[in-house]
Amino acid sequence: MAITIKDIANRAGISAASVSRILTNRGRFSAATAQRVRQLAEEMGYYKNQSAADLSQKASRVIGVLVPTTHTNFADEIIKGMQRQAFELGFELLIVFLEDDVQHQIKTVKSLLSRQLLAVVMLAVDLETAVFDVLTAADTHLLSISNQLNNGIPSISSDNYAMMHTIVDYLYDQGHRQVALIGAADPDSVVATLRRQGFIDALAKHGIRYNPALIWGIDNAYKTGLETIQNFGVPLPFTAVIGSADIVGIGILNAAKDAGVAVPDDLSIITVDGTNLTQITRPRLTAVQQDFAQMGELAITTIANQTLSPNTIIFTDVEMRPGDTVASL
Amino acid sequence: MAITIKDIANRAGISAASVSRILTNRGRFSAATAQRVRQLAEEMGYYKNQSAADLSQKASRVIGVLVPTTHTNFADEIIKGMQRQAFELGFELLIVFLEDDVQHQIKTVKSLLSRQLLAVVMLAVDLETAVFDVLTAADTHLLSISNQLNNGIPSISSDNYAMMHTIVDYLYDQGHRQVALIGAADPDSVVATLRRQGFIDALAKHGIRYNPALIWGIDNAYKTGLETIQNFGVPLPFTAVIGSADIVGIGILNAAKDAGVAVPDDLSIITVDGTNLTQITRPRLTAVQQDFAQMGELAITTIANQTLSPNTIIFTDVEMRPGDTVASL
Repeated sequence: MAITIKDIANRAGISAASVSRILTNRGRFSAATAQRVRQLAEEMGYYKNQSAADLSQKASRVIGVLVPTTHTNFADEIIKGMQRQAFELGFELLIVFLEDDVQHQIKTVKSLLSRQLLAVVMLAVDLETAVFDVLTAADTHLLSISNQLNNGIPSISSDNYAMMHTIVDYLYDQGHRQVALIGAADPDSVVATLRRQGFIDALAKHGIRYNPALIWGIDNAYKTGLETIQNFGVPLPFTAVIGSADIVGIGILNAAKDAGVAVPDDLSIITVDGTNLTQITRPRLTAVQQDFAQMGELAITTIANQTLSPNTIIFTDVEMRPGDTVASL
Repeated sequence: MAITIKDIANRAGISAASVSRILTNRGRFSAATAQRVRQLAEEMGYYKNQSAADLSQKASRVIGVLVPTTHTNFADEIIKGMQRQAFELGFELLIVFLEDDVQHQIKTVKSLLSRQLLAVVMLAVDLETAVFDVLTAADTHLLSISNQLNNGIPSISSDNYAMMHTIVDYLYDQGHRQVALIGAADPDSVVATLRRQGFIDALAKHGIRYNPALIWGIDNAYKTGLETIQNFGVPLPFTAVIGSADIVGIGILNAAKDAGVAVPDDLSIITVDGTNLTQITRPRLTAVQQDFAQMGELAITTIANQTLSPNTIIFTDVEMRPGDTVASL
């Protein structure tokens, strides 16, 4: 026979309502009482039926997470950060992967929304308007991580504009004056736009007029990096290049090797992200490291504290991580 | 006011039961009828309340997926394959990441199981007995992907024993007689055990007595690969090495570069997995490629067709993918 909350309440000598609140992490109870109830629930084999709980609980503890199927490798770092904090604060994550196809996306999002959710976190997702409309029509909080959207959705990400200053300043200090930016040419992406503007303004700050031809490559793909050397031709019209993701930087590094361009002697490379990928190349990639775990943790914390409001933008830390791909001129 | 199945049925001129079956992908209906009902549901703003559906539906369409938080990069390929097929067949995936900590795992698994699930898929997971007991006590199908477990749980994976024959045969044909196996020394892992035995038997088949010292490294980690050269010392006591994962192979490749060992002239490298990582190294890694997308698709198909039974083992395809890291002696 199924164990009910009443059974646990009888054993614990408190009310069923209190047991329910403890098991759903609501209300305030002494640590001893809460622990005793949880232990009893364990021992007596009580499994909260979450589907029933979803229906009856006004404030769900479930947070939906949308992850693009073709995601960059930092997504795992963000999910780890979310998972850790969600566990800490008593929330549960439901992760769904989004295919590229819009009809698939709509169906997946609707299915996720049919559950009682406290919030939906979009993990580095750029959504078509049709999918977006489904999300905004739903009665749930929305939050974008590692991406800034242009429509009042709160977001947690690095300060992409300032990050480009950090990179350009670093290269300038090493003597570089001709610098290219690869993989941030997408006119529709807010992040790419912020990076372009930061790049241009940082160069201007140092008295360098930027050359529009040196901003090239729509996406953060390995292939974009790989095609960079061929696109510009050797000798390259720049001494340093910024890859807008680690995998772009690896593409540039390999293309340079293939074309006989020595890194860093003939070409310096800095990448954005600073994931583990930067450590498995030879030479190791110099990178500006984003704090993806922090993004994930903050996402859960702000949802838990209900400090989300439209247009909230939270910036997380970035740090220069010197590797072996930048030369001093 | 919420739109009900009855409202849709009235508009469509069929029974509410039929609408329900169409919207939950059960029963047989003409494509035209099914499409009309789905379109009406869309237009009328009907969102099936999945939590209510979970409770009332005997046969859930929801499949839980357990992914280790520290997973190898092929997990994404498996999830993509599952996602594609799940969408095709009208199933929904609930993905949860498992932290390393056992208490966290138990809590996460219990929370997942509190939903009405058709099956739980374990994605390359090795679980402690305590966690495993929770899973097996639940009234749901279990399936292991990319891992063979030792306890009657059905599994879908490459034929790890035969795969080692494929690799050793390939190396033998290129003239290699001293071969090391790195990252498969874990005595507790079924997969590692199968690989070791396949390795030993394949060598024996060619009249080579294996040297126990040449099976080294417990885990499939980059660090294990990186420490390989130093562990054996230069000159290496083998001409070829098998890395039990791409990232192990990259570690060996980098360690060889750092130690001045030329690949493939002084050392040949083959890795197991054949993910995109093998394409972003210079030289490109020769690999035996596992079909991870096929594993994911088959997982959903076998669950849908209810062809799972204890001890079922389904092997997926493997293929030699020559790169530039194996020399002919």
